[in-house]
Amino acid sequence: MGRVTVRMPVVKLSHQGERLRPDALAAEEPLELRIDGRPLAVTMRTPGHDVELSHGFLLTEGVIGGRADISLARYCEGAGPDGRNTYNVLDIALAPGVAPPEVGVERNFYTTSSCGVCGKAALDAVKLRSRYSPAGDPCTVEQHVLTQLPDALRAAQKVFDATGGLHGAGLFTSSGELLVVREDVGRHNAVDKVIGWAVQQGLVPLRGCVLMVSGRASFELVQKAAMAGVPVLAAVSAPSSLAAELAQEQGMTLIGFLRGESMNVYAGIERIVR
Amino acid sequence: MGRVTVRMPVVKLSHQGERLRPDALAAEEPLELRIDGRPLAVTMRTPGHDVELSHGFLLTEGVIGGRADISLARYCEGAGPDGRNTYNVLDIALAPGVAPPEVGVERNFYTTSSCGVCGKAALDAVKLRSRYSPAGDPCTVEQHVLTQLPDALRAAQKVFDATGGLHGAGLFTSSGELLVVREDVGRHNAVDKVIGWAVQQGLVPLRGCVLMVSGRASFELVQKAAMAGVPVLAAVSAPSSLAAELAQEQGMTLIGFLRGESMNVYAGIERIVR
Repeated sequence: MGRVTVRMPVVKLSHQGERLRPDALAAEEPLELRIDGRPLAVTMRTPGHDVELSHGFLLTEGVIGGRADISLARYCEGAGPDGRNTYNVLDIALAPGVAPPEVGVERNFYTTSSCGVCGKAALDAVKLRSRYSPAGDPCTVEQHVLTQLPDALRAAQKVFDATGGLHGAGLFTSSGELLVVREDVGRHNAVDKVIGWAVQQGLVPLRGCVLMVSGRASFELVQKAAMAGVPVLAAVSAPSSLAAELAQEQGMTLIGFLRGESMNVYAGIERIVR
Repeated sequence: MGRVTVRMPVVKLSHQGERLRPDALAAEEPLELRIDGRPLAVTMRTPGHDVELSHGFLLTEGVIGGRADISLARYCEGAGPDGRNTYNVLDIALAPGVAPPEVGVERNFYTTSSCGVCGKAALDAVKLRSRYSPAGDPCTVEQHVLTQLPDALRAAQKVFDATGGLHGAGLFTSSGELLVVREDVGRHNAVDKVIGWAVQQGLVPLRGCVLMVSGRASFELVQKAAMAGVPVLAAVSAPSSLAAELAQEQGMTLIGFLRGESMNVYAGIERIVR
């Protein structure tokens, strides 16, 4: 699996004594995104699918609307101490006419002139930037399809099995067919990689799709799903308050604690066929 | 618990049918940190202990060395749509002689002129900035003390019990006494709040202490512990490759998969008394 995992010697201590053995750890490396040569962001990610990551990040931040807005994505030639390319700097060229993001994009997302930094401003910023709001997507999902998704996601998480250390995100059709799964040490990166894959496939907006994540549902994950037009977001664990509020405002179905036969529905229950 | 949780109506679906009930969700709101009036960073956090969060963040980013480096921390008067203070902007005044952080502090942490952006640069940056490396801290911890920490942390996580949606971080003495526990929707925030508490108490560097976190151990969490001089970091789940490498380089003891009677030791096993 290349740089996705790193083998290291580990001492396992238990009541049976101690045992030295090699263990596979999830790889983590910084990735810098540059837009037209200018640094935009650095994220700690698991190497691999970096071009997808960049596409998903730029779509969910509102910089691009689809694959046609990017004319080139390639690794810079920066070399590590051993003289080899680190493959940790990705240079993106935007298509002519696409406005480059402002520096300090993160801060702008949570701030409005009317109320300063607050949750309401964060909700408003998504509304302002979204091109593909899931509101109005008439798709429905059978309840029994939803309850099968956690196992389907877990089964497709190959690196998690080896390391126990990765977040997973999977994109499904509304009938439960798995389209793509991605894993990363950062849960937002796993979602960006899935959405970036869809951008590259020309599938955005993701009408009629279900995004399933292995952990919790934060504001940031609902934001990313909303920006890609995903109508149904399901999480194994809890959502935050602002995640639920954003889903309600965006007309998205938000499901948490999806485990075994049960789930909690925080928004958009009309899409679930009981 | 005030703004730490938010009550919302939730529909619980299971094979027993559906039930509408109010549920407590972990609160999430943006917090902007300003240094001497200039915006530095925005983090999505669970409101509360924000001054601690700011102190921990600034210490672990290498801006301050202790509480004497901050002369004032207070909420700005920015008002939300309802006219009330949002308590989401914190203005920090550094003490005379303390250099303000450069803008783009995040990028600088992962970049060196010699190799560009890479894991080695990230390790070097911590070495360069650290004032309180845990290397050389002679403290030891009994194995049976370590195996009690997950339950002790969990027992102290009051909001997790209500919401299931928060990361926890707890600071313990090497004999297992709990000093402080903090919870947050962001695991790095929970650690910043714990370390910020210690900064305010004048306890940094945290010689002889064990930091226990409820989730995984990323590079960022090991970095934060190293910057505060914490000699032992223990996590319920897996570390990343770069987290283990940083712990080895910093002379920190790093424990993962601390569950029941067993644990994996990735660095600094000499501090564990079997």
